[in-house]
Amino acid sequence: MQSLGRHVLAEVYGCRFEVLNDIKKVQDIMVNAALEAGAEVREVVFHKFSPQGVSGVVVISESHLAIHTWPELGYAAVDVFTCGDRVDPWDACNYMAQMFGAESVDASEIKRGMMTEQEERLVVNI
Amino acid sequence: MQSLGRHVLAEVYGCRFEVLNDIKKVQDIMVNAALEAGAEVREVVFHKFSPQGVSGVVVISESHLAIHTWPELGYAAVDVFTCGDRVDPWDACNYMAQMFGAESVDASEIKRGMMTEQEERLVVNI
Repeated sequence: MQSLGRHVLAEVYGCRFEVLNDIKKVQDIMVNAALEAGAEVREVVFHKFSPQGVSGVVVISESHLAIHTWPELGYAAVDVFTCGDRVDPWDACNYMAQMFGAESVDASEIKRGMMTEQEERLVVNI
Repeated sequence: MQSLGRHVLAEVYGCRFEVLNDIKKVQDIMVNAALEAGAEVREVVFHKFSPQGVSGVVVISESHLAIHTWPELGYAAVDVFTCGDRVDPWDACNYMAQMFGAESVDASEIKRGMMTEQEERLVVNI
């Protein structure tokens, strides 16, 4: 059995309020995380909440990166989903944690789309 | 300990090629899944890949819904992240699976952002 994708879910703690509440900074870090991992960016959409918090997604050819921030808690929920062998989701995840100046990260990887090898030979869009 | 969010990851198998490869249909199903669950839609972004496959995200006030489809395998990787108590991610997930005509769904829920009750009282943006 092979998986089509790898999905890293990261709990990012101890980040600075000013970074997590700045839509421009959060968006730049997310896009650069995708690029650092060698992903191809397709769509970028971010939203600033009132009074605080940012949500956003970077759609990449290899799937997506998503983030939701709680600046008042110094916390961000991040997930990085990649398919194919070319991009490692941990590269993006580690870059983000570093750029957010996180004090701690609790992350785990989940395999997505378990297929037989025969089925996987049919895959053409990754 | 309380969690800030609930993240449902769903492996959706046995869907029709024609639906999974139609960006308009996939987008409509995802947006309606968010609305069915009572979420507030903020941003919608979808991308069609060549020769096949659709990726997209619906950013909601309560976090996001994301999908990546492999029409040639009848498979979609879906994730629904919600924060707060008002929206149940399973409502969106079940609606999607039904609208995609899935033969089987393998889904699980992961708690995101574990906080002490004291920390959670600081939360203002959900």
